[in-house]
Amino acid sequence: MPSLRSAATTAATIETRPLHAVDRWLAARLQATIAPASIGVELWDGSTTGPPGQAIGDLLIHDRGALLGLIANPDLQFGELYSDGRLDVRGPFGEVVEALSRLTKRDRLALSERWALWTARPAGLLVARRNIHRHYDIGNDFYRRWLDPDLVYTCAHYPDPDATLEAAQAEKLELVCRKVDLRPGDEVVEAGCGWGALALYMARHYGVRVRAFNISSEQLDFARARAAREGLTDRVQFIADDYRNISGRCDVFVSVGMLEHVGLRNFGALAGVLRRTLDSRSGRGLLHFIGRDRRRPLNAWIRRRIFPGAYVPTLSEVTTRVLEPAGLSVVDVENLRQHYARTLAHWWERYEGAVPELRASFDERFIRAWRLYLAGSQAAFSTGWLQLFQVVFAPPDRLVHWARAGLYNPPRETA
Amino acid sequence: MPSLRSAATTAATIETRPLHAVDRWLAARLQATIAPASIGVELWDGSTTGPPGQAIGDLLIHDRGALLGLIANPDLQFGELYSDGRLDVRGPFGEVVEALSRLTKRDRLALSERWALWTARPAGLLVARRNIHRHYDIGNDFYRRWLDPDLVYTCAHYPDPDATLEAAQAEKLELVCRKVDLRPGDEVVEAGCGWGALALYMARHYGVRVRAFNISSEQLDFARARAAREGLTDRVQFIADDYRNISGRCDVFVSVGMLEHVGLRNFGALAGVLRRTLDSRSGRGLLHFIGRDRRRPLNAWIRRRIFPGAYVPTLSEVTTRVLEPAGLSVVDVENLRQHYARTLAHWWERYEGAVPELRASFDERFIRAWRLYLAGSQAAFSTGWLQLFQVVFAPPDRLVHWARAGLYNPPRETA
Repeated sequence: MPSLRSAATTAATIETRPLHAVDRWLAARLQATIAPASIGVELWDGSTTGPPGQAIGDLLIHDRGALLGLIANPDLQFGELYSDGRLDVRGPFGEVVEALSRLTKRDRLALSERWALWTARPAGLLVARRNIHRHYDIGNDFYRRWLDPDLVYTCAHYPDPDATLEAAQAEKLELVCRKVDLRPGDEVVEAGCGWGALALYMARHYGVRVRAFNISSEQLDFARARAAREGLTDRVQFIADDYRNISGRCDVFVSVGMLEHVGLRNFGALAGVLRRTLDSRSGRGLLHFIGRDRRRPLNAWIRRRIFPGAYVPTLSEVTTRVLEPAGLSVVDVENLRQHYARTLAHWWERYEGAVPELRASFDERFIRAWRLYLAGSQAAFSTGWLQLFQVVFAPPDRLVHWARAGLYNPPRETA
Repeated sequence: MPSLRSAATTAATIETRPLHAVDRWLAARLQATIAPASIGVELWDGSTTGPPGQAIGDLLIHDRGALLGLIANPDLQFGELYSDGRLDVRGPFGEVVEALSRLTKRDRLALSERWALWTARPAGLLVARRNIHRHYDIGNDFYRRWLDPDLVYTCAHYPDPDATLEAAQAEKLELVCRKVDLRPGDEVVEAGCGWGALALYMARHYGVRVRAFNISSEQLDFARARAAREGLTDRVQFIADDYRNISGRCDVFVSVGMLEHVGLRNFGALAGVLRRTLDSRSGRGLLHFIGRDRRRPLNAWIRRRIFPGAYVPTLSEVTTRVLEPAGLSVVDVENLRQHYARTLAHWWERYEGAVPELRASFDERFIRAWRLYLAGSQAAFSTGWLQLFQVVFAPPDRLVHWARAGLYNPPRETA
């Protein structure tokens, strides 16, 4: 995140000028907009306006520009201003962020959102590499401080809501293997393998061979070192290449948390990969991705600062643009939205615990941006703004499972 | 099915004229078309052409018109000619039908199919009533001879492939109740309730109140009599009305096997019903329907003779045209295609056993048409030409289940 790490500004630049009448008028307007969220507004001179009834928290606005920004373009500016320390939140951060996220109309797109959809362009190989580098190559040390020890940076599956993050990530890896009915000897392709946890799990527990693709160099270094340490290099091959360059055939195709980075206009390319890669007799696969109920671009700030080039598709966009052109049937879809909210709650809690140490390596702007990203994502999943879909697919006349019960009952197989 | 019951023709009208050179040429052309299915052709004079290798069966063609019809418009004419007895099948009927159904290209639409999609018009209330009357009001006695005793005329759920039809239908009713997490006191709306089995099951086992809608008068008579017999009239109300006229509010909306009759151009009307009916806090629901991997009209013969006005949608058409405009999220999708193939195998087997008795009430044309419809449907599901989707949905911030395991493990609740 070079753009966040450099150009440090701090919360110290609080306005000292007295209020003007226009500030009070703007504050009242902002208050009216956010009133349904029961959040108050406090300006830089300490003056406050409150919602009718009890406020769950307050926005502390430190200068006039921040006030204007929040009114003019809240989708982008809330994140920018909070990162810059020109806006603070008093009260429970997560609850305030969640209440604010409920304000957006679900069935209306802002003009800027339509514009973003119209002008989205397919990322070529180089742009894709740069986008992925920017998020995933912040440094493995950074992620190690708040992810589970296996560094699984995707939605976990909690057997019950009180399970630990570690247990839930292990459960997720197992669930993916069961959903695609892994069998010893299967040839597996994984598109976008992160730090390699799933590929290594599959090889270790199911006796399959995995070719795992990724374009994040830091992740690949970690994954390869781990494969060597665990004696799995003969069964898991970590390949530094784009999903579009996947060649050869496979029995099982899995992709967990990559589709969001593909972008709608490259869905046809992914369909082509599936069509030429997946065996038409033995084939089956799973796409695990963040989704939406209706077409909409990602939040403008997330798109700018956190996930450049990302697009969160609807289920329909995935079935019609990826699976249908690849000649594949939908076998099973599970929405794990609440599990991602729980996963993010765990990540965020660990992240906050690590902040004192992170300050040694990262500036305050970066630290605040990631706090908002984690809390905002949790809010988006718990309110249903974002969904998490696991889609199992197969050629039309391939039976993957007779019935689901078998997925949830038998003891784990090990190879 | 008045059109099938009247105008009886029989297999007795076999051509006696000797073959002409053009007949041999046409037979060779037909043979070339169906060769990949390993099926032979035998003409009315006993002359045969065979596929390369062993044939699994033969088409016995009884006149020149039949030969021409099979070449010119097989989608429609196979059913017409077989019903009329101008075409017979030698060898295992189901296997031959399945082999023939595999011949159609999956990713290409015939011009007549495009035309059918373009010209499809939304059925008004009267047309819908006529279409439903034609299929479902053949007489309860007819259906009683080959359905299970509860008269469940939709895909069952087989705990294992060897389960009985009765067990599998009971399991399906229970599965639907669990998928929507029925709770005592829930107000349920069922759109298209058939002979009432699900509505009565819900009331009996889960202590809910059900308003069940249907426009088939014979089915309603049966359902009401059964409710009275079982003392459930205070909890289940069978209402003779179209789904578009559903009023009031409900906690749970279920529809099992009705969506196929709604037609694509009425999906917006169904979305409107969901939007105004389903409680935005407590609401959740399930749509169970025959689906497809890609947009395509129903087989022309099925559309003409069996299910007038029916359209089998893709999953994407349902999510974008029904759930999205209703502001609902996809919670869970299960493809039960193989279970429908099994269900149809059971129905067909019982149907064949009942044919001697059915001949007292129905002519040979009707009996042959239904044989082909049942065998052809089984083939369509087992080859993946048709899918069976159960879609669970809910408002975006409603949690229906924490995890699936609970659906498959606990003992049945009873009220």
